[in-house]
Amino acid sequence: MAEKAKITVVGIGPGSLFDMTPRAREAIEHAEVVAGYTTYIRLIEPLLAGKEVIGTGMMQEIDRCRMAVEHAAAGKETVVVSSGDAGVYGMTGLVLELILQREKAERPIFGGTVAGVSAVNAAASVLGAPLMHDFAVISLSDLLTPWDLIKRRAEMAAAGDFVVALYNPKSKKRVHHIEEIREIMLKYRSPETPVGIVTAASRVEEHKVISTLADFTKEEINMFSLVIIGNSQTYVKEGWMLTPRGYGRKEAGL
Amino acid sequence: MAEKAKITVVGIGPGSLFDMTPRAREAIEHAEVVAGYTTYIRLIEPLLAGKEVIGTGMMQEIDRCRMAVEHAAAGKETVVVSSGDAGVYGMTGLVLELILQREKAERPIFGGTVAGVSAVNAAASVLGAPLMHDFAVISLSDLLTPWDLIKRRAEMAAAGDFVVALYNPKSKKRVHHIEEIREIMLKYRSPETPVGIVTAASRVEEHKVISTLADFTKEEINMFSLVIIGNSQTYVKEGWMLTPRGYGRKEAGL
Repeated sequence: MAEKAKITVVGIGPGSLFDMTPRAREAIEHAEVVAGYTTYIRLIEPLLAGKEVIGTGMMQEIDRCRMAVEHAAAGKETVVVSSGDAGVYGMTGLVLELILQREKAERPIFGGTVAGVSAVNAAASVLGAPLMHDFAVISLSDLLTPWDLIKRRAEMAAAGDFVVALYNPKSKKRVHHIEEIREIMLKYRSPETPVGIVTAASRVEEHKVISTLADFTKEEINMFSLVIIGNSQTYVKEGWMLTPRGYGRKEAGL
Repeated sequence: MAEKAKITVVGIGPGSLFDMTPRAREAIEHAEVVAGYTTYIRLIEPLLAGKEVIGTGMMQEIDRCRMAVEHAAAGKETVVVSSGDAGVYGMTGLVLELILQREKAERPIFGGTVAGVSAVNAAASVLGAPLMHDFAVISLSDLLTPWDLIKRRAEMAAAGDFVVALYNPKSKKRVHHIEEIREIMLKYRSPETPVGIVTAASRVEEHKVISTLADFTKEEINMFSLVIIGNSQTYVKEGWMLTPRGYGRKEAGL
């Protein structure tokens, strides 16, 4: 059997190579095999010359990661790429689980995760300063999580006056979830609460809208969007969304 | 009056230049004035030759940011640096507020935020894969936030089964807060719940411990630590902390 190689999970950041860390870039350049969802593979195309690429559609992600683990176990230096930070709803968990499932003798070396700029941070930077205070991150995808639990989390986050960032807010098949979340938030927050929607942050097609809790679901929201709902202190001034760091500082002007 | 220049807030990432994006690096290299807390200024020292540096202690951060805004208004290209992502408990909000307070004619150009790798993502990457599911980020600093609100947030996050990341978990003056948070979490979660503590992630002195909700406050925790408390599904295997992406997948092995 060939000498085992390393498998590393790499967060490539929100999209542009300009937002990818040197550590991530080096890991990719150093790899013989690169695995990832086709959309992400396309974003890092300039780095892939001469490499073996494992890129399939989203639905086969377990198979794709398993193949990557096998390549590494067979002696090929491998990276699995994930957009944003691979450690947030990304591939790190799956890769680690697949490695640990194997007999010890059959495991590749786990090279850990190279952290990247997370989607929520990229979206916040486009909107202004919405994450200056405590926040909750919730995915509305109910593929692997019961919808009742997701709703309960939204309710708890609303009750705790967290700024709330929603991943996977809407897809072609899943259009009503976001409306239910809006209803839940409205039980606790003013209809005027600012809501920012950022689509494709840091890519050429980047697009942002700042709306309100009452109206934001009328805006275009898709699977590349991230939605950030302000807390009770968040305000909008000249097109920027701001959550003050201190409570009671909104009126004081600082 | 001189032509106005731009002020940009730059997230430098967790510490190493190797974890700073090219966009952040370029913004710093391009600036004439760099403002930031002394510890962060030291981390980017190699980039500062020939620049005017505004670096004072943490307590004067409002003055420091105000000086930076004034330099930019007076025509000097300026960046304010913040560790991790400048958009999370960082300097973006303060800089934006200070700009918007000024008369329109007196304002520098706001260059926005360059998003960086956030401390929570860096810490997660060291621990394994703790953030594969919904999470809440809470700062335990009660300098600008009432302690009762912080406790309420911890309670809501616990009740919602969020993974919980704690910023500013402990300082020399503030040693009991973390114990109170532990008590709150124990009302909702097993004493065996994994808790990861990462201190100085991605710096030479990086240090990690994986403990349990029952015992973690016995470990060394300081102002450079980030604490991540698992949800009901989080487990530890061979030194890695893992939160499965799907509910009920823990037993299924995926």
